[in-house]
Amino acid sequence: GKRWRIGVLPGDGIGTEVVSATMQVLELLRDRFELGLDWQELPWPSTAWHQHHGEMMPADALEQVRKYDALLLGALGDPGPLSDVGRYRLSDGDSLAPLLTFRKGLDLWACERPARLLSGAPQYLADPRAREVDMLVVRENSEGEYVNQGGRLHRGTPFEIATQVEVFTRAGTERLIRHGFQRARQRLAERQQSGDPPKQYRDTVRDAPRRDYHAQVCLITKRNALPHWGELYTEVFQSVACEFPEIATHHELIDAACMKFVQSPWVFDVVIASNLQGDILTDLAAVLSGGMGVAPSCNINPDRRDVPALFEPTHGSAPDIVKQGIADPRAMMLTAAMMLAWLGVEDERCALAAKRVEWAVQQDLLNQKTDRAGQFERGGPGSPRSTADILECVLTLIASPESKIE
Amino acid sequence: GKRWRIGVLPGDGIGTEVVSATMQVLELLRDRFELGLDWQELPWPSTAWHQHHGEMMPADALEQVRKYDALLLGALGDPGPLSDVGRYRLSDGDSLAPLLTFRKGLDLWACERPARLLSGAPQYLADPRAREVDMLVVRENSEGEYVNQGGRLHRGTPFEIATQVEVFTRAGTERLIRHGFQRARQRLAERQQSGDPPKQYRDTVRDAPRRDYHAQVCLITKRNALPHWGELYTEVFQSVACEFPEIATHHELIDAACMKFVQSPWVFDVVIASNLQGDILTDLAAVLSGGMGVAPSCNINPDRRDVPALFEPTHGSAPDIVKQGIADPRAMMLTAAMMLAWLGVEDERCALAAKRVEWAVQQDLLNQKTDRAGQFERGGPGSPRSTADILECVLTLIASPESKIE
Ligand SMILES: CC(C)[C@H](C(=O)O)[C@@H](O)C(=O)O
Ligand SMILES: CC(C)[C@H](C(=O)O)[C@@H](O)C(=O)O
Repeated sequence: GKRWRIGVLPGDGIGTEVVSATMQVLELLRDRFELGLDWQELPWPSTAWHQHHGEMMPADALEQVRKYDALLLGALGDPGPLSDVGRYRLSDGDSLAPLLTFRKGLDLWACERPARLLSGAPQYLADPRAREVDMLVVRENSEGEYVNQGGRLHRGTPFEIATQVEVFTRAGTERLIRHGFQRARQRLAERQQSGDPPKQYRDTVRDAPRRDYHAQVCLITKRNALPHWGELYTEVFQSVACEFPEIATHHELIDAACMKFVQSPWVFDVVIASNLQGDILTDLAAVLSGGMGVAPSCNINPDRRDVPALFEPTHGSAPDIVKQGIADPRAMMLTAAMMLAWLGVEDERCALAAKRVEWAVQQDLLNQKTDRAGQFERGGPGSPRSTADILECVLTLIASPESKIE
Repeated sequence: GKRWRIGVLPGDGIGTEVVSATMQVLELLRDRFELGLDWQELPWPSTAWHQHHGEMMPADALEQVRKYDALLLGALGDPGPLSDVGRYRLSDGDSLAPLLTFRKGLDLWACERPARLLSGAPQYLADPRAREVDMLVVRENSEGEYVNQGGRLHRGTPFEIATQVEVFTRAGTERLIRHGFQRARQRLAERQQSGDPPKQYRDTVRDAPRRDYHAQVCLITKRNALPHWGELYTEVFQSVACEFPEIATHHELIDAACMKFVQSPWVFDVVIASNLQGDILTDLAAVLSGGMGVAPSCNINPDRRDVPALFEPTHGSAPDIVKQGIADPRAMMLTAAMMLAWLGVEDERCALAAKRVEWAVQQDLLNQKTDRAGQFERGGPGSPRSTADILECVLTLIASPESKIE
C-alpha cells in the first residue's frame, strides 16, 4: 500500500503535550489497522528563536516540509508576548511566523473549520437548537488583511500614523468562493447519502424564484464600511453562484454574522469569509462546537494534493495551563482525524481510521457528564480531567473490539 | 431652566417606527417632568437619495445639525442592497452615509455601548454567570479601518486587485485609550458609591506586583497578524496605563476576545477596540445585553459638549419586519435614556428622567416572561408583542405614581 509521510511540529506550550498524546493514538491506529504512516518530528518551537539567530526555523524549512504529505502542528505562541529573548525581540508575530510561513509559502489558501456540536461537549448557548449546529467555515488563508503591508510613519511623535494595507486579488477571491460552493455541494451529497431529512435553507441574495434549497452558502463582508474588497467579493460571489443553481445564497455583514453565530447559528451551512473575518468566525464556530477542547482545523490547497496540507487544532499554546497535564488533547486528536480523512481520499484505511478517532472522541465525551453551564464536570469534584486520563480512555476505546475496521 | 435642542432622524425601515414610539415617551417625560426639550425632525432617509440627486442629505446637513445639542437616530440601511434607485446606484455604503458623515464630520470619535443584562431580557448564554455581565465597550469611531481609502485596480480582469487601507493616528489612539481608562475609573467610583461589593479583576499586561484591582481595561488588537497598528495601540496603551495605577490591564486578540465574550463575558470591565473590531464586539455585547431589542449606543466626543452627540440603537433598519408593527422600541427608548443621561451631566431633571426610562423598560421586561432558550414568550402564543403594546406599557409605567421625580 501507499505510505504517507507526516511532518510533526509540536510547537509551543500545550502543543507539545497534546501532540505527544495524539501520536500515541496514531501509533495504535497504525499498528492495529496497518496504516502506511511514517512520521518525523520537526522541533521548531518559539524557543528555537535564539538558536537560529532570530529565525524560528532553519532557512530551508519550507523546502524541508515539502517532502511530507501532511503536517501536523500542535500550537504556536510565544509564552511572553513582547518580551526580549536574547538579543532578539520576539514579538507575537514572530512567534507565529511558521504558521503564516507555511500557509503562504505552501499556498494553503483555504482554512476549513467545521462546527458541529459533539454530544456531551460543552454547550455554551442557551437555546436548545444550538445542538443542531452544522456548518463549515471556509476562511481565506493567503491574502487580504494578513499581507503584512504598511508601516509606521513619524514613529513616537505626536503625529505618528500607522497604516495596514489589506490586499485582495480577484484570483484569490474566486478560488475561495468557488471552493466554498463546491464544499456546499459536497456536504449536500453527503447528507443525501446518509438518508438524513433534507435541511431547508433560504436564498436572500439572488433574484431567483422562491424554491426549496437544501444547501446554502453565506458570504461575509463588511462592504458598507470596507467597500473596495467588499464589492469585489460580492461581484465574484454573484457570478460564481450561477454555477451552483441548487445552492441558496445569502450575505451577512461581519458584525451581524457574529451576532447570528450566537443567536441562531443553526441557520448556517457553508460560510465564506476573508482572512481576518474568517479568523474571528472560526473561533466563534469553535465555541459552537464545544470550545477549544474539541475544535480541529486544517489549512489546505484544495487544488493540489502534492503540497502538504497543514492540520492544527484551533486552540493556541495556552501558556496559563502548560505543564500541568490538563491540556485537552481531543482537539488535536480530531485534527489528526481530519488529516487521516484528507489522506483517506486516496486511502480507504486512513478514511476508516479517521472515523474511528471521531467515534472514540465522541464516546469519551459521552462517558463524561456536562453541567448546564456548559462546563465539564471534570474527573473528580473541581479537578479537570487530565490529558493522560483522556488519552487512556481514547486508546482503550480504539483498541476495543467495537472499533474494528473491516 | 436650560433648553435642549434635539435633532431627530427617524431614518429607514423600523427606524421610523421605533422613533415615533420613543418620541411619545419623550413627550410624556417632557410634560410630566418639565424637561427643557425641543425637537425637530430631520427627514433624511435612504429614499431621499433620488430627491437629492444621489446625495442622501442636503449639502449643508452637517452645518444644519451643528445647532443641536444631541441627535437621535432611528436606523439607517437601504432596504435593497446593491439595487438601483433611479439613475443612481444606492450601495450599502451610500445608504449609511449619514451615520459615517456625522461620526467623522462632528468628530464623534468614541462609540460607547454598555452591556448589562436587564432582568427579563433574553439570555442567550447557557452559563448562569452571564447574568453578571457588566461591561462597557469603547469603540474608536473616526479612523482606522473605516477611512475608506484604497480602491480597485484592473477592475473586472483576472488580475484585478482591491486594496483597503487602514490608517491609525497616534493622536486618535491616545485619546481613545485615555478615555477608556477614564471611563473605567468613573465606573469604579460609581460602583463604590453604590455600595456594591467590589469586583475583582486580574492584571496580565503590566509587570506589576500582584495586588487587588477593582477595575480593569482590556485592549483589543490583532497584533500578531496586523502588527503596525497593533504595536502602536500596545505602546500607547502601556504608557497611558501608567496614569491609572489603580486599574488592571489586559490584552486580547480580537479572535480570542470574541470567544471570551461567549464563554466568559463576566471577566470584562472596560474593553477598548478599533473601529472595525469595536463594531464586532459591540454587536456581541448587544447580544449579551439581551439582543438588539434592548441595546442602545452613543457616538460622542468626550472632550466637547458643544458638538451634538449622536445616539442610536445598535439595531439596523430590519427590512424583514418593517411595517408589521412588531419592531421592539425598547432599544430606542434606552437610547433616548442615554441621551438624557448625557444632557443630565448639566441638567439634573434630564438625569432623573433617564433613570425613569431605564426603570420603566426594566419593569416592562419583568412583566413579560422569558423561556430558557432566551426567546421572548411574546404577547400571545406565537405572536410577538407589538410596538404599540410595549409603548403603551412603558407610557403607563412612566405615568404611574411610583415613577415621580422628586
Ligand atoms: C495565530 C494567528 C496568527 C492565527 C490567525 O489569526 O490566523 C490564529 O488565530 C488562527 O486562527 O490560526
Ligand atoms: C452601519 C455600519 C456602517 C455601522 C458600523 O459598522 O459602524 C454599524 O454596524 C454600527 O455598528 O453602527
